[in-house]
Amino acid sequence: MSRTTHIISPTWIAPVLPRDTLLTGHSLVISGDRIEVLLPRDEAVTQFPDSSETRLDQHLLTPGFVNCHGHAAMTLLRGVADDREMMDWLTNWIWPIEGQLVNEQFVYDGTRLAALEMIMGGTTCAADTYFFPEAAARAFSDMHFRAQVGMPVLQFDNAWAHGEEDHIHKGLAFRDRIRNQPLLTTAFAPHAPYSVTDSGFERVRLYSEQLDTPIHLHLHETATEVSDSIRDHGLRPIARMQKLGILSASLQAVHMTQLREDEIVQLASNGVQVVHCPESNMKLASGTCPIAQLLEAGVNVAIGTDGAASNNDLDMIQEARSASMLSKIESGDATRLSANQCLEMMTLGGAKFLGLSDEIGSLEPGKQADLCAVDLSGPTFQPMFNPVSQLIYTATARDVSTVWIAGRQLLSRGQLVEPDSQSIVKAATNWKKQIEGIVSHE
Amino acid sequence: MSRTTHIISPTWIAPVLPRDTLLTGHSLVISGDRIEVLLPRDEAVTQFPDSSETRLDQHLLTPGFVNCHGHAAMTLLRGVADDREMMDWLTNWIWPIEGQLVNEQFVYDGTRLAALEMIMGGTTCAADTYFFPEAAARAFSDMHFRAQVGMPVLQFDNAWAHGEEDHIHKGLAFRDRIRNQPLLTTAFAPHAPYSVTDSGFERVRLYSEQLDTPIHLHLHETATEVSDSIRDHGLRPIARMQKLGILSASLQAVHMTQLREDEIVQLASNGVQVVHCPESNMKLASGTCPIAQLLEAGVNVAIGTDGAASNNDLDMIQEARSASMLSKIESGDATRLSANQCLEMMTLGGAKFLGLSDEIGSLEPGKQADLCAVDLSGPTFQPMFNPVSQLIYTATARDVSTVWIAGRQLLSRGQLVEPDSQSIVKAATNWKKQIEGIVSHE
Repeated sequence: MSRTTHIISPTWIAPVLPRDTLLTGHSLVISGDRIEVLLPRDEAVTQFPDSSETRLDQHLLTPGFVNCHGHAAMTLLRGVADDREMMDWLTNWIWPIEGQLVNEQFVYDGTRLAALEMIMGGTTCAADTYFFPEAAARAFSDMHFRAQVGMPVLQFDNAWAHGEEDHIHKGLAFRDRIRNQPLLTTAFAPHAPYSVTDSGFERVRLYSEQLDTPIHLHLHETATEVSDSIRDHGLRPIARMQKLGILSASLQAVHMTQLREDEIVQLASNGVQVVHCPESNMKLASGTCPIAQLLEAGVNVAIGTDGAASNNDLDMIQEARSASMLSKIESGDATRLSANQCLEMMTLGGAKFLGLSDEIGSLEPGKQADLCAVDLSGPTFQPMFNPVSQLIYTATARDVSTVWIAGRQLLSRGQLVEPDSQSIVKAATNWKKQIEGIVSHE
Repeated sequence: MSRTTHIISPTWIAPVLPRDTLLTGHSLVISGDRIEVLLPRDEAVTQFPDSSETRLDQHLLTPGFVNCHGHAAMTLLRGVADDREMMDWLTNWIWPIEGQLVNEQFVYDGTRLAALEMIMGGTTCAADTYFFPEAAARAFSDMHFRAQVGMPVLQFDNAWAHGEEDHIHKGLAFRDRIRNQPLLTTAFAPHAPYSVTDSGFERVRLYSEQLDTPIHLHLHETATEVSDSIRDHGLRPIARMQKLGILSASLQAVHMTQLREDEIVQLASNGVQVVHCPESNMKLASGTCPIAQLLEAGVNVAIGTDGAASNNDLDMIQEARSASMLSKIESGDATRLSANQCLEMMTLGGAKFLGLSDEIGSLEPGKQADLCAVDLSGPTFQPMFNPVSQLIYTATARDVSTVWIAGRQLLSRGQLVEPDSQSIVKAATNWKKQIEGIVSHE
């Protein structure tokens, strides 16, 4: 065999496909950046005698988690303004700080901090949208992190671009520049119905079709968004998107609260995919996405943390737990969103959402070796009846032990393999001083 | 000074009282089992020159957390039956297993496992109710853990007692035996309106008044409980408890979902205290406790994890976060249950709930030295704008570093000071085999 192989032997493997499978005493063999095979450990050691081996006692190996919505650079604003009403939070805190500080370096430093936190928490791929996408892409690349980087489109001026035309122009130039980076994909990211004009959406739709590129859009985040749209356009946001040709299989719809039954049918029949951000929706009191009904209607639902400024972490395990608990309490049905369903949503569901399910999202031969091993040995996980239940209902990002992206080991027993976290934290601390300077003047 | 003093010097101290205070560069001095004083670190070192000192860089020191509702021994049933409807969960899984296995050793082993998890997560006091309270009390004592141990009362027979009379008799005998243990208190724990008769409640009330001992009761946990009570007694459970004289300042009411506005007023005017268990309520789809309205009405609200079998952990930090997020989304108001309010609920609110606020719940001179230090140094907490926000919205039990109960250090940098966790985990693993034997026969 020409490529280097490596054997990973955890106590349990949850490959996600085939569904609800739990393998015990098995190994997963990596060859280069891909999964070669899964088989009983003794066979693995016999068939690959020259391979090195990582043994992970009392660990559960799963596909790396796929965080389908976030604003990585906003990690620098984590905790700067909690417990505030959403428009107060945005207009009096987040936007003024962003207006004064956001530049290439801010985005690069914040994105590296987010990627560091995500890697430490078992997330191996994220969908990101923010200004200066080239800086975010560079940060993700430097961290060897897989990402869909959004090309933001807004009618409002900001440090990166001026008006919708300029956003689209700069976004397309960015897209051309990163085309050959194997870990990166792109999406058009019109910000929201209230910040993009009809003609902006029409141009985005045109390019999306021509370039076969998805559209990532905040949609139906709050009740105010819906009532403002009726006031300004005579239509609910979903109806306006339908009219503009945006409701299609290319649409990655973010948040999706305030949904009527007929709208759920409409989303399903148009092949729209949804990303649910339960903790951001709860913390900002935005509303609830009816994921149980969406799943029943056949809509693919992924999970996202949203930015750390409204969460306040990027922990996909806790996010899946929150999704499950919120779904159970909202529907009054404790059987909704089981642990296995959560695991599928945060891996394969996310991969489908990003159009990457041929490459990631399950542990199958030929797929990319994006892997997460969670240490379930502590007293908190005892007694151990069901590792997937313990993952979803008991573990947190802090229990993630070992992580690979595209076959490269990035985290080993909770420690970064290439430890440069100090420089990342130092940069964050420097930004903190500048942010506090602005906040104290407000 | 005759008693040994010790200086604890963290980066931040949140004493809870005075409210919303955050001290930086201060030390807390312990003398014996009590808090001596809080003062700037340089003054502490000068005033107590012979003291040893624990420096805790980038740590937040708070009062130990008070977990006001749980069934410690049920930690042995963690994850045995997730994603099930509540009565299916109880009648087909929990009760059959309990019926066959629960004995003194089960309760002792399970309670030690729970105490271990709670200590590792910064919880220093818990309200517990289960069968064989003497075994639970022995386990808490052996772990040097502070607890209110319930004297269970049920009309149904079980391994510990037969009928209400026998429960009360055995409970009172237990109460006499542990009277001199400084870390333990007791409460009558009639199980629930549907499992205790009117005469059982009347006897409990009588003894509660005579012995000045609180009553800890599951009340209004589900909509079914309310409708069954109307069917069987012609009254909602709260009205029945009012009629039986149970609604008083002695009542520790657990769960409290399905509340009408007039019932909230009734609770407040009777001085009833409430413990909110958000994660158990969500996971079992029981319903929501309207804590924002209860707090507004002047009701003291504490936080509890409930048993690990319906949670699935005993992490008070995550529980407070869930309480905050659930309150925000239910009320549609993102300013509800701020981080500072959460910290007060999980410390001083809990202390009041248990009648212990003269002794614990805040960091004030003369109070018991029950302390929790959380390590906020990791990348996940950067940048650091507000340590209390980061505690509630970002940290988990896994970030708790150092813990004292009554002046004795039990956890140091995440490690047990007297490490006997292996024997506790081994006992849990042995019970797991017996439980699986029963489950596989169902």
